[in-house]
Amino acid sequence: MTEVEWGRLKSAEIGALAARNAVAVVPVGSIEQHGPHLPTQVDTLLAGEIGLRAARLAAATTPVVVTPTVWSGLAEHHMSLGGTLTLDLATFCAVLRCVCRSLARHGFRRILLLNGHGGNMAALTAFANEIGPELQLPVATATYWTLAKDAFAAILERQTTVRHACEAETSMLLALAPDLVDMAKAADAVGPTEVELAAVAGDAAHRYRSFKVRTRHGAIGDPRAATAEKGEKLLDAAADAVAKLIANERFWALPA
Amino acid sequence: MTEVEWGRLKSAEIGALAARNAVAVVPVGSIEQHGPHLPTQVDTLLAGEIGLRAARLAAATTPVVVTPTVWSGLAEHHMSLGGTLTLDLATFCAVLRCVCRSLARHGFRRILLLNGHGGNMAALTAFANEIGPELQLPVATATYWTLAKDAFAAILERQTTVRHACEAETSMLLALAPDLVDMAKAADAVGPTEVELAAVAGDAAHRYRSFKVRTRHGAIGDPRAATAEKGEKLLDAAADAVAKLIANERFWALPA
Amino acid sequence: MTEVEWGRLKSAEIGALAARNAVAVVPVGSIEQHGPHLPTQVDTLLAGEIGLRAARLAAATTPVVVTPTVWSGLAEHHMSLGGTLTLDLATFCAVLRCVCRSLARHGFRRILLLNGHGGNMAALTAFANEIGPELQLPVATATYWTLAKDAFAAILERQTTVRHACEAETSMLLALAPDLVDMAKAADAVGPTEVELAAVAGDAAHRYRSFKVRTRHGAIGDPRAATAEKGEKLLDAAADAVAKLIANERFWALPA
Amino acid sequence: MTEVEWGRLKSAEIGALAARNAVAVVPVGSIEQHGPHLPTQVDTLLAGEIGLRAARLAAATTPVVVTPTVWSGLAEHHMSLGGTLTLDLATFCAVLRCVCRSLARHGFRRILLLNGHGGNMAALTAFANEIGPELQLPVATATYWTLAKDAFAAILERQTTVRHACEAETSMLLALAPDLVDMAKAADAVGPTEVELAAVAGDAAHRYRSFKVRTRHGAIGDPRAATAEKGEKLLDAAADAVAKLIANERFWALPA
Amino acid sequence: MTEVEWGRLKSAEIGALAARNAVAVVPVGSIEQHGPHLPTQVDTLLAGEIGLRAARLAAATTPVVVTPTVWSGLAEHHMSLGGTLTLDLATFCAVLRCVCRSLARHGFRRILLLNGHGGNMAALTAFANEIGPELQLPVATATYWTLAKDAFAAILERQTTVRHACEAETSMLLALAPDLVDMAKAADAVGPTEVELAAVAGDAAHRYRSFKVRTRHGAIGDPRAATAEKGEKLLDAAADAVAKLIANERFWALPA
Amino acid sequence: MTEVEWGRLKSAEIGALAARNAVAVVPVGSIEQHGPHLPTQVDTLLAGEIGLRAARLAAATTPVVVTPTVWSGLAEHHMSLGGTLTLDLATFCAVLRCVCRSLARHGFRRILLLNGHGGNMAALTAFANEIGPELQLPVATATYWTLAKDAFAAILERQTTVRHACEAETSMLLALAPDLVDMAKAADAVGPTEVELAAVAGDAAHRYRSFKVRTRHGAIGDPRAATAEKGEKLLDAAADAVAKLIANERFWALPA
Repeated sequence: MTEVEWGRLKSAEIGALAARNAVAVVPVGSIEQHGPHLPTQVDTLLAGEIGLRAARLAAATTPVVVTPTVWSGLAEHHMSLGGTLTLDLATFCAVLRCVCRSLARHGFRRILLLNGHGGNMAALTAFANEIGPELQLPVATATYWTLAKDAFAAILERQTTVRHACEAETSMLLALAPDLVDMAKAADAVGPTEVELAAVAGDAAHRYRSFKVRTRHGAIGDPRAATAEKGEKLLDAAADAVAKLIANERFWALPA
Repeated sequence: MTEVEWGRLKSAEIGALAARNAVAVVPVGSIEQHGPHLPTQVDTLLAGEIGLRAARLAAATTPVVVTPTVWSGLAEHHMSLGGTLTLDLATFCAVLRCVCRSLARHGFRRILLLNGHGGNMAALTAFANEIGPELQLPVATATYWTLAKDAFAAILERQTTVRHACEAETSMLLALAPDLVDMAKAADAVGPTEVELAAVAGDAAHRYRSFKVRTRHGAIGDPRAATAEKGEKLLDAAADAVAKLIANERFWALPA
Repeated sequence: MTEVEWGRLKSAEIGALAARNAVAVVPVGSIEQHGPHLPTQVDTLLAGEIGLRAARLAAATTPVVVTPTVWSGLAEHHMSLGGTLTLDLATFCAVLRCVCRSLARHGFRRILLLNGHGGNMAALTAFANEIGPELQLPVATATYWTLAKDAFAAILERQTTVRHACEAETSMLLALAPDLVDMAKAADAVGPTEVELAAVAGDAAHRYRSFKVRTRHGAIGDPRAATAEKGEKLLDAAADAVAKLIANERFWALPA
Repeated sequence: MTEVEWGRLKSAEIGALAARNAVAVVPVGSIEQHGPHLPTQVDTLLAGEIGLRAARLAAATTPVVVTPTVWSGLAEHHMSLGGTLTLDLATFCAVLRCVCRSLARHGFRRILLLNGHGGNMAALTAFANEIGPELQLPVATATYWTLAKDAFAAILERQTTVRHACEAETSMLLALAPDLVDMAKAADAVGPTEVELAAVAGDAAHRYRSFKVRTRHGAIGDPRAATAEKGEKLLDAAADAVAKLIANERFWALPA
Repeated sequence: MTEVEWGRLKSAEIGALAARNAVAVVPVGSIEQHGPHLPTQVDTLLAGEIGLRAARLAAATTPVVVTPTVWSGLAEHHMSLGGTLTLDLATFCAVLRCVCRSLARHGFRRILLLNGHGGNMAALTAFANEIGPELQLPVATATYWTLAKDAFAAILERQTTVRHACEAETSMLLALAPDLVDMAKAADAVGPTEVELAAVAGDAAHRYRSFKVRTRHGAIGDPRAATAEKGEKLLDAAADAVAKLIANERFWALPA
Repeated sequence: MTEVEWGRLKSAEIGALAARNAVAVVPVGSIEQHGPHLPTQVDTLLAGEIGLRAARLAAATTPVVVTPTVWSGLAEHHMSLGGTLTLDLATFCAVLRCVCRSLARHGFRRILLLNGHGGNMAALTAFANEIGPELQLPVATATYWTLAKDAFAAILERQTTVRHACEAETSMLLALAPDLVDMAKAADAVGPTEVELAAVAGDAAHRYRSFKVRTRHGAIGDPRAATAEKGEKLLDAAADAVAKLIANERFWALPA
């Protein structure tokens, strides 16, 4: 199997990948509270795992490399529930800017910021709109569950997409690290426990809301339905969708 | 008719509105190229006009005030087509931060950043996630055509939503400032003229793209179908949707 | 009449103006309390109006375009009297830097930051000293009442220059927007009401002072003497002085 | 064995550790070229591994938790040799500031920035001098090989301390991830290959120097002497030294 | 004679001055080219010397202390003539902010930024408008030759005020450091040598202009008329004017 | 004697030095409390004096110029003992960046940041690692007492190196400015008076500590042993070591 992990490669190997016009995948996660039954690394673990699985799939046709996962995301909304390490927006952009500039200096001409945390989504889009014209390179961003939207909807039973510490995330953790999941506590971790924004104003208006005022225990969704088998399917579906994006030559060839 | 325009009010009147817990609406637009047939002020004009119309509707039940429109938005993607004045992301957030802080210091406890420019959407969401916890106030953001999505789809004939210098924007300009619209030039301003991102990769992945590589003339959508009558309907529909949000007491009362 | 307003022009028209080496005028105002009888938009309204009148005068001989007015100025000293939206110094410079850089990228080689707010004066000079060498272009700044100093002194009866919410500003508002002026309240809006810096230390030393400690009601000067006729004369005198600067080819040709 | 890894803990468990006044260890590494025979993750792998080993040792007496490793360090000097992802100084400090502030908000009162990369040393000291007084907490920083200086000198045969991609780092990689080490290439990776600063001016003067001008292949030291056994000893010695610091109650109790 | 120089005082003596509500004078100069006949330290030397002389005069009635002179000013306009060390605007403000904050933390409640360099004037005013409300203290700024305007006009023969490397500055240097003045070269250092802004557009408009395009040799004014005796008079007049400001209790007592 | 002091040179003379590839020495000090017996300028005075003495020695073989001393350093740890003017880290780096950029623009290709304050050491190293690659020039930094380590150890009787307000600093002040030294108060200024970090954890771990918690009176070391004669020897030894570095052609010729 081709090695795709930046951290496991030697410098010359990375240079060779750049010379072959490899897609550089930068997984971006978060370290934050994930309810009573899941550990804080969920978003970081999943972004990295899906990035690697996708890269291994894509590598058959497309040179690709996956950097270490940026585990420091935007999670102010989780701070009051503990366990969370958050950046501010300027710092989040600064870190990604430095990573992208480093990649560009080494000759990489295609960058995918692969996101695994809801709180990063808007900022990644805004950031991509800045770094793209600065580097004059295609810098793309996508969230794995949006790329795999239909497949996820088909696999999940009580949700249609990824929520937080939910059927989807709990399933994937059961597949990857069952010892870190406390299903006994999942029984009560069903949310939201409070009225949600969409319930009173639809989806079109956004307001900052702390997770604490949405859910007493930190979870949104229904983790009780989680299984490892479902998790494995979700991971594969996500990897498949990301791999298609990596290998989508027309996507990358579109002028910027 | 109650005066809702900050710039037309005297200081004491603004103070009285703050004391009544008025919603402060901050329209956010852009100054940028709008194809061969529309002037550069479109997004600024529309955001401001819709903000005022909405506020006048809402004022019957909800104290409300509309600040001057922040006309300096994020429009790097339009720069290469001329006529555009763009901020960078840090400056955009800094301006909004100063405005929101000023509002909070005067006692306003409910702020709506009402957007009229596609390029601002992600940044406004990311910004709202920062300023909300900083001020410990509900700072909301919404784009008028997303709020009025269904109504717009029903009114428009060749598009389902607002694109750029399109059936929708051209119609609204015909309603508000017909002397600024050159319908003779609209005949050719149909776009996109080049292959679009969604055509090759769907909607789930984002990549910075200059407008110039999407459309030779700067327009996306079909302005030929524009009429003033349609424009008036769109403006009213947008104002109606925004007014409902302003007057949605449950929306504002949700804890942050 | 030649159109000079950026926001009313189409992109190609703006490009043509740049190609003809047009002077780009950027009016800079403020939104701030203006005593009991004037609205908060005074400085923004006047800077923009004078910019447009001047440009129309100058257009006979000099290509010229007027951007939207930067309405967000430096007005911390007015905050405690309400109605004010202020930037901090770094943000003020950042906005102007983005606007000037945008202008330069579109090919404009002559920029005039036309000021209408006392609190912006020093900052605009300091900013011009930065952006000039950065862009290697003549970026000028001037405050309209300083340019028209002698004419203003001749027109005004109880002041020699513009103060704040005073004979001059009230007159110009009476000329432009009489419905926004409450002359009944002007009767008491004579100031300063407290001892002034110059009275104890002359003009040579500067100290930050809140307007609140200079004048209880927010006005300095004597608005009772204001008339619309006087206002029209002031506007014309200001426009005339600014037009002369715009059309002063030797001024712009001086090397930077 | 007590779990000490932040990412494997649940939020409530982390809160309990904070309540017990746990020491929060933040490993700080780098992703950078490591000569022809080692992968780019060396400094990140070692900082994290030593942090965890040390925490497990210390946990017997001292509550302790280890955050994910900050893998983005200061490595401009390695950029020209490829494989490197570097931050600038301001961003490096900003990331650490956000992490430390997050820790403080969760109630942690003792923070150790455990460093595994030479290029971070000065910056971490300078940063600690800023964040300490800001948070009014003991924020310490130490580099593992300096803490274990004597033990390392005793274990190593051809060096006295850690250099770069050297006997020490290669040994530790042989212990932890032998499949990532190419000992065949280590044969030539002896350095420096060019004249060193200390050779011409002693140790007292510092000058930025790119690694490329110090060593053609990216390694300094002698990796040929590396063995896994030596590596295991080094890891244990480092962990032991770091554990002593974590458990040194007098060290943490010294007023700031 | 009372010691007024911060750098010559011991910490406890400075604390005692703060306790007596001493005025803290911060001289601000520049290091920049001063024509063919004067050294680069002129503005720094003069600001510091006048600050100390003034403080010694004022000390009879007012507790006062003079910090070291901030020698790093805004002198981009002198860069092309050599010998100049300039800050950018943000850094200039940052240094002064740190100094003022330090003073405030030590209990000083009255701060005078005493300027001796034309290029600093606008920035110091803008800065004072920021730091005043931040610290809620009277932070004043004045330029010595503006404070002593009338006296200077009476003493000088060929100028009415300080220009650059001119009759005034050369005279003061002859008084303070005659060995640093090359009067032989002053013979030709009469300027401006090129057309000036005021000559084509009056004083009311400001434009950045490099000194090089105003004067070939770097001097403006007429240093040929300089004498040490005149210099001593100028220094005393400046010191006298500054002392009056320091001792002006009503000035400092005005609310901010 | 060749003039080496930037502030005493004329612009053309400085240009000539740059053309001869002079080493530009930038002394960096601090203004901070120095115990009961020494004035606050100690570090600034010594860095500047040693820089000048060294430059005069080196000038025989190496063109050299010494800028004014950057007297604003990093001294937060002294703030609580009074008399201190401190910058924050970002401002400290910004000032030095502006100075180095100015030097580079004037053609200087070799820069030595000569430090005289312990609190600046780590930051100067971190800064040099940034500015070196930015300017692509050798920017070196050294602290005088580290360069002259052995000589200092031989001269001092009760210390082996410079501490703070100690035998070494007091001796050098007695040599340079005896009127500023109060030896009567030195009798009690022996420190540390509290337990030191190294005593509980060795030298390898760093923690921010205020001077106040290390020494009640602000001094560390033993100033009672200070003599002017010793001070003169220390100054000469330091100047000698710095001169050797300035004149070390191989040091400067090493590629960056």
